[in-house]
Amino acid sequence: MSQIMVTAQLARWIVGLKEEGVPPDVRKEGVRTFVNWLGCAVGGSRHETVDAALRVLNPFSGPRTSTVLGRADRLDALGAALANGISSHVLDYDDTHLKTIIHPAGPVSSALLALAETRELSSREFLDAQIIGTEVECRIGNAVYPDHYDRGWHITGTAGVFGSAAACGRAIGLCERRMRWALGLAATQSSGLREMFGTMTKSFHPGAAARNGLMSALLAEAGFTSSLQSIEAKRGWANVVSDTQDYGEILDDLGTRWEASQNSYKPFACGIVIHPAIDGCRQIRDVIGAGRVGEIESVDMRVSPLVLELTGKDSPETGLEGKFSVFHATACALVRGDGSPAAFTDEAVKDPEIIAMRSRVHAVPDPNMKEDSIHIEIRFRDGTRLQKRVDNAVGSRSNPLTDSQLEEKFVDQAGLVLGEEEARGLLSKAWRIGGGESLKEIALASVPK
Amino acid sequence: MSQIMVTAQLARWIVGLKEEGVPPDVRKEGVRTFVNWLGCAVGGSRHETVDAALRVLNPFSGPRTSTVLGRADRLDALGAALANGISSHVLDYDDTHLKTIIHPAGPVSSALLALAETRELSSREFLDAQIIGTEVECRIGNAVYPDHYDRGWHITGTAGVFGSAAACGRAIGLCERRMRWALGLAATQSSGLREMFGTMTKSFHPGAAARNGLMSALLAEAGFTSSLQSIEAKRGWANVVSDTQDYGEILDDLGTRWEASQNSYKPFACGIVIHPAIDGCRQIRDVIGAGRVGEIESVDMRVSPLVLELTGKDSPETGLEGKFSVFHATACALVRGDGSPAAFTDEAVKDPEIIAMRSRVHAVPDPNMKEDSIHIEIRFRDGTRLQKRVDNAVGSRSNPLTDSQLEEKFVDQAGLVLGEEEARGLLSKAWRIGGGESLKEIALASVPK
Repeated sequence: MSQIMVTAQLARWIVGLKEEGVPPDVRKEGVRTFVNWLGCAVGGSRHETVDAALRVLNPFSGPRTSTVLGRADRLDALGAALANGISSHVLDYDDTHLKTIIHPAGPVSSALLALAETRELSSREFLDAQIIGTEVECRIGNAVYPDHYDRGWHITGTAGVFGSAAACGRAIGLCERRMRWALGLAATQSSGLREMFGTMTKSFHPGAAARNGLMSALLAEAGFTSSLQSIEAKRGWANVVSDTQDYGEILDDLGTRWEASQNSYKPFACGIVIHPAIDGCRQIRDVIGAGRVGEIESVDMRVSPLVLELTGKDSPETGLEGKFSVFHATACALVRGDGSPAAFTDEAVKDPEIIAMRSRVHAVPDPNMKEDSIHIEIRFRDGTRLQKRVDNAVGSRSNPLTDSQLEEKFVDQAGLVLGEEEARGLLSKAWRIGGGESLKEIALASVPK
Repeated sequence: MSQIMVTAQLARWIVGLKEEGVPPDVRKEGVRTFVNWLGCAVGGSRHETVDAALRVLNPFSGPRTSTVLGRADRLDALGAALANGISSHVLDYDDTHLKTIIHPAGPVSSALLALAETRELSSREFLDAQIIGTEVECRIGNAVYPDHYDRGWHITGTAGVFGSAAACGRAIGLCERRMRWALGLAATQSSGLREMFGTMTKSFHPGAAARNGLMSALLAEAGFTSSLQSIEAKRGWANVVSDTQDYGEILDDLGTRWEASQNSYKPFACGIVIHPAIDGCRQIRDVIGAGRVGEIESVDMRVSPLVLELTGKDSPETGLEGKFSVFHATACALVRGDGSPAAFTDEAVKDPEIIAMRSRVHAVPDPNMKEDSIHIEIRFRDGTRLQKRVDNAVGSRSNPLTDSQLEEKFVDQAGLVLGEEEARGLLSKAWRIGGGESLKEIALASVPK
C-alpha cells in the first residue's frame, strides 16, 4: 500500500465534483476544445487512414448506435470511439496541452460522444465529463513528463486512456470504488509508441485510447475488478512507464488549478513543434512577396532541440511523413504560404518545387530556444539576407487562436466534407455544447445530407 | 534505420516458413499446447470474471460468428478472442514458457480459433500458425526478460500480442511488408501490468492481447500502415519497455531452436512459482496421512526469491487473491491435499481450518533455490520434525505432465462444464488438431448441449 493514495483521491474527485465546481472560464475552454475536436474529426473523416480502419471495423460492428463523424457509416459505440479518435488526429490539426504535448480531446471527446448516443446524457453532463477527462489525462501526463515521453511513449495514447475512462466513468455515474477499477483497467491498457509517427498507426493511438477507456468504464460498471491503486503502486503505471513521478501534479490544487483550461488549438496541420517555422516563413513570404521566393538560396533556422528530435525526417515520401519533416513544412510555407491539411498531402510532399526548396532548408538545435519560438535567416541569390525571429508562435498559449479563428478553421475543414452551409450549421450547434444542445443532433449534423 | 533488421527478418520467417519446416516433436508439443488451452478455456468459462466480461461484450457484438468456449454465448471474432483469452487464463491453470513465465496459448490460440470460425483455415494451417505465434511471443519475451518483467510488465500481455498478430497474420496470408505492419500495430498496443495480479484484470491481459493481435493482422491486411521496424527501432518496443535487449534471442536459430517446444502445463491452478510448495506438501500429506495434518505446529520453507515477490499475499480474501498467496496454497495443500481450481475459490480462502494453517506457514527467500525447487521443514506439536526437498516440481520441463495427465486435467476441468462424456468427446477432437479435424466442430463441441 502506497502512502499517498493517488488513485483513490483522484477517483473521489472525478465522481464527486459538483457542477458548480467547474469555473466559467474552464467551461468556456471546454467548449472551444469540443468545437476544435469536432471540426478536426469531420475534417479528417475522409482520410485514407479512416477508410482503412473502417474496412476492419464495419464488419465487426454490433448495433450501429453511434455516428462516425462526417460519414454515412455508423458503428457500435466502441467502434465509433475508435474511428472518431482516428479522424480527429489524422491531420495532426487537433488540440495540444503544451506542457505534455498531449492532444487531449481525441481520446476523451471521441469516447464520450459515441457513448452519449447510447445513454441519456445531458449536454451539460457531457461537457463536465469532457473537462474532467481532459483534466485527468493532462495531470497524469504531467506526473511522468518528460521522462515518459523521452523514453518513447506517445503520451496522447498512454495518458489519454485515463482521460477516456475518467470521462466515461463520470458520465455513467460510477461510484468511487468502480472508478478506481476503471482507472486500473485504463492503466493496464495504456500504450502507444512514438516510433509510429509518420504512419497511420499514430492516429490509431487516440482512437484506441478512446475505445479502451470507454471499455474500462463499462467493465468497471459490470463489476470487473482491478487494482485499486494502479497509478502509484510499487509496480503501478507511473513506476513502470517512467523513471520519475510527481504525484503532486495529479493531486495538488484539484479543482483550482485547471490543466483543462491550458488547452491550445493548432493553426497548422502538423506536429506542433514545427509551428514557429511555418508561422515565421508565412510572415517572411508576406513581406517579400511570392515572386521573390524563387530567389531564396538558403534557409537557416535555430530551433528548439525537440524540433529535430520529433520532426527531423529529411526526405518524406507521404503526406503523413511530411507532418514530421520541418524541412518539408518550411519549404511548403515559403513556396505556397500553406500550413493547412493541403500542405501535408502526398501531392504536396512530391511537388518538385517544394522538394527543391526543402533541400535549401537547414536547422540546428539551440537549447536556449523555446518550443514556441524560432530564429530564421534567409539568404537570397543576390547575397542579401533577411532575419526573422518568432516568439510565441500563433496557436501557442500566449497567442491563442481567437474564437473567430477557430470558426474559420472549423469551416475550412468541415466545409470540404459537408459544404460550407452545413458546416456553419454544425458549428452553431457545437458552440452550444453544455447549454442544452442535443448530443445526438450534433452527431447527426456531422453527416453530409 | 537499425543495423539489425529484427522486425523484417522475423516477418520474413513468419510468412515464409514451409509446412515441412515444423519438426514432428514441435508439432506434437503444439497439439499438447492446444489441448491444454482448450481444457482451461472450457474449465474457466463459468468463472464470474467471464460473466462480467460478457455483460459488456455481448451488447457490442457484431455478427456472432465465433464461439465463446464452454458457453451458449456467441460473439464476433474480436469479442470471442477476448472472452476466450480470459477464460483460458482465469484459473491460472494454463501453460507456461518457463524461461519468461509467458502463458503462450491464451493470446495465440484464443485469437486463432475465433478467426478460424470466420475464414477457411485447415486444421494443419491452424496448428502451424499457433506454433509460429507461440514461437514469436516467446522469442520476443526472451529478448527483454527479465528486465522487462522485473519492471512490472505482465509479459503474457505485452509479448502475447505479438504472438497473436503473427499467428493471425500467418493464417490470413499477409505478405512480408504487411506482416511488419501487423507487428508494428501489435507493438503499439503491447500492455498489461503485474499490479493487476489478484484481480479479474489479470486474465483480461491474454484476452486483450488475443483481440489486439487479431485486429493488428486485420488492419495490416486492410492496408493500415505502421512502423516497419517496430521492435528494434531507436524508440521501438524493445528499447521503450526494457533496459536490456538481446535480439539474438529473436533471430538466432529460427527454425532449429524451438521455444514453442519448451511449453509446460500446470498441474496446479495458481502462479507457477507456488507449484513446488504444493507438490512438496501433497507428498508430505501422503506420507504422514491426513489425520496428522492437524498436529502441525509450523511450516518453514526456503523458496526461490520470485515466490515471495509474486505470491507473497499473506491475507488473501478472494479466490483470485489466493492464487497469489504461497501461504494459502501451502495450507490448502496440507489441509485438503488440493491444488486444483477448487483450492482457489472464495470458499477455500475463507475456510477457518486453512486460515489457521496459513498462519503457521513461513517462507524465506533463498537466492540459491531454483524456481522449480523448494525446501520444506515441518515441525509437529510433539517436537518431531520432517524435511522435504523438491527439485523439478511436477509440471516443470524436467518433469512434464504426461499425455494421460493432460487428459485427466482436461476431463477434470471440462467435465464440470460439459459432463464427463462430452468432455472426453471434445478431448478426442482436440488431440486431432493439425490432422484434419474441423476447427468449427471443435469450437461447437465445447458448448454444452
